[in-house]
Amino acid sequence: MRSRTCVIGLGLIGGSLLRALSAAGHPVSGYDASPDVRSLARTASAKWRIAETIAEAVADAGIVILAVPLPALPAVLDGIAAAGYRELLSDVTSVKEPVRELVAERVPQLRYVGGHPMAGKETSGFAAGDPDLFTGCAWALTLEPDIGPGQLDDWLSMAALVTGLGARVVPVSPGEHDAAVALISHLPHLAASGIAALADTGLAATLAAGSYRDGTRVAGSRPDLVAAMCGGNAAALGPVLDRFIARLTEARRLLDKPDPVQALTRWFGDGHRARTRWPPHQGPASELPVSAEELLRTGRDGGWVTEVAADRRTVLAVRPLS
Amino acid sequence: MRSRTCVIGLGLIGGSLLRALSAAGHPVSGYDASPDVRSLARTASAKWRIAETIAEAVADAGIVILAVPLPALPAVLDGIAAAGYRELLSDVTSVKEPVRELVAERVPQLRYVGGHPMAGKETSGFAAGDPDLFTGCAWALTLEPDIGPGQLDDWLSMAALVTGLGARVVPVSPGEHDAAVALISHLPHLAASGIAALADTGLAATLAAGSYRDGTRVAGSRPDLVAAMCGGNAAALGPVLDRFIARLTEARRLLDKPDPVQALTRWFGDGHRARTRWPPHQGPASELPVSAEELLRTGRDGGWVTEVAADRRTVLAVRPLS
Repeated sequence: MRSRTCVIGLGLIGGSLLRALSAAGHPVSGYDASPDVRSLARTASAKWRIAETIAEAVADAGIVILAVPLPALPAVLDGIAAAGYRELLSDVTSVKEPVRELVAERVPQLRYVGGHPMAGKETSGFAAGDPDLFTGCAWALTLEPDIGPGQLDDWLSMAALVTGLGARVVPVSPGEHDAAVALISHLPHLAASGIAALADTGLAATLAAGSYRDGTRVAGSRPDLVAAMCGGNAAALGPVLDRFIARLTEARRLLDKPDPVQALTRWFGDGHRARTRWPPHQGPASELPVSAEELLRTGRDGGWVTEVAADRRTVLAVRPLS
Repeated sequence: MRSRTCVIGLGLIGGSLLRALSAAGHPVSGYDASPDVRSLARTASAKWRIAETIAEAVADAGIVILAVPLPALPAVLDGIAAAGYRELLSDVTSVKEPVRELVAERVPQLRYVGGHPMAGKETSGFAAGDPDLFTGCAWALTLEPDIGPGQLDDWLSMAALVTGLGARVVPVSPGEHDAAVALISHLPHLAASGIAALADTGLAATLAAGSYRDGTRVAGSRPDLVAAMCGGNAAALGPVLDRFIARLTEARRLLDKPDPVQALTRWFGDGHRARTRWPPHQGPASELPVSAEELLRTGRDGGWVTEVAADRRTVLAVRPLS
């Protein structure tokens, strides 16, 4: 029985995942391309096994979770394939459709469930890892409407693992995931950077207060990482940015009206309604029969899975109160 | 000697100003159009005089500060003129060029120095007022490059009053002020509302985390107030929004490139450099000779006035370290 869970890539997310899995009682192994990081992780605890090669890391694993940046994925997938790994694969990459395509192309022989924990910190690296990083965090796990029973079972294995870490599992298709993160993460990064770049004058810096501070906070993130994140999701982000520009262009048109306040009040009303509803109130957990359709509908409506029943016929799911 | 300072409009800012002036030892009077607010302010303390009419409020005042919304200004200016007030006038309205025009049109006989404290809270109304609201806050006071000695003296009177409340006085022309607040306040409101309006799906709400939360925070503000603020600054906000849309359109173009990451890294670099420099480090205070040109240059470079010398020939000014 290959019961070990293996984490490849031991940065903030991978390092936190290694700690969280270990704390939850799972036998874990880990690997990082950097010898320094491997050494750091090895001396941090005797509870996990840090391997010297990918092949060694995946040797007795039943689940391998990739926590490397998107550009590093092809080489890592090739390494796993070369090691003869044949079990379940997941990842924590912030885009899902490009990873799905990459997996289908490089390791079609593997069973794959895409994942994306909505967790982050201002810091990075193994040392910044936190076993509680995923407690209460939304963790997207991808499935397709037409998946078969075996794939659904793999999805439930990952859901059981991740809910066991205290995360809220959001069932979602790769395409819907990528469109949603374009809206709630990549678009805010573009807007923050655009505002910060324009407001770069001495006078503006002095007058800037709360709305500037919060509205531009994420512009402080490393440009190369943000560019990789947005560029990796270009197919979903492009149409979202088109809609944002169209909406701002409408506001621009209203500003030219002789008396723009009433029309602008309506324009601002949409965002106000949406923002004051957030975060949504959560309803009671209820049993949901396991089917791709039911799971996907739950995610689409803003719900999530909190627990997988032992017989895997039902899950406990929470939906927001409408 | 008309030594009383009068505040018209006793909401959050006016009510805080009444308290701050009184705490700093100034004899103050106040007026609000609402009988309930007048009654509330009157029972709050015996240290200030709350008048029943504008005429009564301004009767023995040497400085009148208007703290009413832009749409209420014309009627209040007419009321002050009808009361025969002839002394110094200031205000706290968030746009300065439209107020300057209104004052020139309605009360050309008054000496006027425009003001805008960059202070705010999530709450509003007299009861939410705070005498320490202006401590450390940037307070723009407007002047023109070609003002005469009398007008410069009025500016120094307001600067002395406001630095006495602990505020950092930013000398600025009305036009430069309006362009700067368009960048650091009105544009973040437009962007936040646009993101919130688009990200209004159940799935997006579940996946939303820090970048959504901070990037859309101000979309929770009252749409009518934000619309009045943006609409009142339409002349300055329009060109700023044009530049923002152009910048986003450039990012949109880059997303269509076969390998967009390198170009996007450069695009995100501008905002990153600006945001990581903010807030600027402050240099030591130094004496500055009083002239419109020197004061305006100080404000433009990101500096501010912390104290007006007793002889009014110099001010103490701080400039950011470059």
